[in-house]
Amino acid sequence: MRAIIIAVGTELLGTDRLDTNSLRLTETLLRHGVELRRKVVVGDSESEIAAQIRLAAAECEVLLVTGGLGPTADDVTREATAAAFGRGLIFDESILKVIEERFTRMHRKMAAVNRRQAFVIGGATVIPNPRGTAPALRLELEACTVFLFPGVPHELFGLIKSDLEPWLRERAGEVALESVTLRVACVPEADVEEQIAPAYAEFGRETITVLASPGDVRVRLSASGRDEERAARLKSMTDRVAGLLGEALYSRREEDDLETVVGALLRGFGATVSTAESCTGGWIAQRLTRIAGSSDYFLGGAVTYSNRLKEELLDVSCELLEEHGAVSEPVARAMAEGVCRLTGSDFGISVTGIAGPGGGSEAKPVGTVHFALAHRESAVSWATVHRQVTVPGDRERVRFFSSQVALELLRRHLRRAAA
Amino acid sequence: MRAIIIAVGTELLGTDRLDTNSLRLTETLLRHGVELRRKVVVGDSESEIAAQIRLAAAECEVLLVTGGLGPTADDVTREATAAAFGRGLIFDESILKVIEERFTRMHRKMAAVNRRQAFVIGGATVIPNPRGTAPALRLELEACTVFLFPGVPHELFGLIKSDLEPWLRERAGEVALESVTLRVACVPEADVEEQIAPAYAEFGRETITVLASPGDVRVRLSASGRDEERAARLKSMTDRVAGLLGEALYSRREEDDLETVVGALLRGFGATVSTAESCTGGWIAQRLTRIAGSSDYFLGGAVTYSNRLKEELLDVSCELLEEHGAVSEPVARAMAEGVCRLTGSDFGISVTGIAGPGGGSEAKPVGTVHFALAHRESAVSWATVHRQVTVPGDRERVRFFSSQVALELLRRHLRRAAA
Repeated sequence: MRAIIIAVGTELLGTDRLDTNSLRLTETLLRHGVELRRKVVVGDSESEIAAQIRLAAAECEVLLVTGGLGPTADDVTREATAAAFGRGLIFDESILKVIEERFTRMHRKMAAVNRRQAFVIGGATVIPNPRGTAPALRLELEACTVFLFPGVPHELFGLIKSDLEPWLRERAGEVALESVTLRVACVPEADVEEQIAPAYAEFGRETITVLASPGDVRVRLSASGRDEERAARLKSMTDRVAGLLGEALYSRREEDDLETVVGALLRGFGATVSTAESCTGGWIAQRLTRIAGSSDYFLGGAVTYSNRLKEELLDVSCELLEEHGAVSEPVARAMAEGVCRLTGSDFGISVTGIAGPGGGSEAKPVGTVHFALAHRESAVSWATVHRQVTVPGDRERVRFFSSQVALELLRRHLRRAAA
Repeated sequence: MRAIIIAVGTELLGTDRLDTNSLRLTETLLRHGVELRRKVVVGDSESEIAAQIRLAAAECEVLLVTGGLGPTADDVTREATAAAFGRGLIFDESILKVIEERFTRMHRKMAAVNRRQAFVIGGATVIPNPRGTAPALRLELEACTVFLFPGVPHELFGLIKSDLEPWLRERAGEVALESVTLRVACVPEADVEEQIAPAYAEFGRETITVLASPGDVRVRLSASGRDEERAARLKSMTDRVAGLLGEALYSRREEDDLETVVGALLRGFGATVSTAESCTGGWIAQRLTRIAGSSDYFLGGAVTYSNRLKEELLDVSCELLEEHGAVSEPVARAMAEGVCRLTGSDFGISVTGIAGPGGGSEAKPVGTVHFALAHRESAVSWATVHRQVTVPGDRERVRFFSSQVALELLRRHLRRAAA
């Protein structure tokens, strides 16, 4: 099966908004083995919408149209679709009743314009939309099924689940595409490619996609076919690629970020952490505390931008700062141990570096960043490791990448301790 | 003039990437008074690209095609366009020479596949692309001009500036659309609408667009027409709407964030600031330090997630915490003053709240956040203001909105001091 997506809305032809709904629709299509041929965005013009819908319906088996089902005069998708296929529009009292009840439930008066949403295209099936006022419509043509969905994301997403998915599943049978995402931090894309190269030969290059963003690489493995063989194939691919990635792999779930994984490891150990940040300016603490319940393992952090604060708060000695400079291994180590002492945490992470654009020198160019991870072994002894990284890119990039390196340093340490 | 944008690339039909290039192209079109009719995304299929290009060229005066000019076999935009209009492809030795020189300059060997990029569509004008290997092409048809641009964003953006803009300016004459963005923080969209309502009547509703994102509202004012009258009209609109917004207006520049404006104000005063954060977890410090040179006015911050750290680091008394709880006005005040004492800064901002999803109670539901801004008046006296806000939404939203409120509190204080 092939599909085309048409997004309707003049606001999607401006400079501020993209049709992001299509990503969710695409994910659903691909998962059911349907190929996406084209995506189109048109404004709120009845003739333009009708022309594109007519064209598309002749070129695919599933046509997904989003937007333009609202109550106002510029919502003309219903009219355009009816015109495209020479159908009439029929007023449906039962839909009006549902809309009126919805307003009553919300203690609001229904505006007269909402009556428009009760019109149905002749021959179309009405799909209830419990999250909004406009129902979706499904129109079965000879060779193509046309879905009209509202453009409001949470309404659309609800309808994908409740209606589009079951419809696709029925037609796709057991044959479907499924994928698993493996995540890796702080390893260059090319190195990941090299590490997993044997798997390309074994499973086929087209089944493995590598997606890189700064400091983070996703390896997406896809398998298609009938339920059982697909699951077995995906499992053997996942195990193989995970094995090739080794300890670089931080998660087998698309939705996990590094801070999620680090948080879970800390929780597992019953360990606590604190942060001492210079160039990252609080970003590591911000990321750790994104996770609900992080107060169980994150005690606090110091953003010590000035040398004076490094001395006063973290007990970094004035001599150390003078001899080595703030961006140095000894200072990174002292910061990490200092914040552990300050907060009483088991682990302390520190970052000190030059984020730029100013402040670089020949010996310490912009992008020079020192990291330390302190682990309290006893009241007086420390196991502290140090890392130095030179991060290319602008200030934002240096700062984010540094927060990745710091979290990854802690993750690998915890992982080894767990092994 | 009307335009259509076609983005070519199978990767743009997947679940990970959107055609963001079109936003920049749209901005350029609108600025020159060109209306965008449609956006289309097609995969790397020669027949599909050719069909869409042929259709579009018949429906607009400017057709912008991006992507598919690369050296590999799946880059077929040149072939498809030639086929669409029955033109031939001609090998251009001079383009090959430019590509070869580029590789030599980069000390790399040109791959044989790059020869493909030296093919030109019969009758097309070659547009040099100094940032990449593939030149852009311009094909003048009877009623439509077709531009083929590379899809690599920084190459495309360079070509927009060097070629598309001058071409559009020549055709648009002095008539163009220009806009100014006014920015407002922490005011609900509906309140902004109400405040600026008189301007709708005076300048026309279609010239003013309100764009809301959590905690931030952009008011975009647009004027079209010839150079002088347009500039005058835009100025009077800007002054009028800025007057209506009053002190809520934090910037007249699209690219300014709240931290940029707060940073500039602090720099202007020669004043310093520090932060004491609980629920925002370091986000305010992270935002302040996003700005290059922020070390001139940002001394540091404390992320005091635990009560113990609030006591030890910020000198919040144990009695205060026990009597009022960590999320309370007295604790927010004590935190702000404490961080000033700790860092020696002129201003101290504090945030303490319940970000959720857990931790709420009937008296203090999720979203309850207390803020304080301390200003040292002398060694012993403080001018400290307090604000309490209830932020709706999930953890991420409560945290970001809280960082907005804190920065806005400081901005308004500095602004009044400057007046």
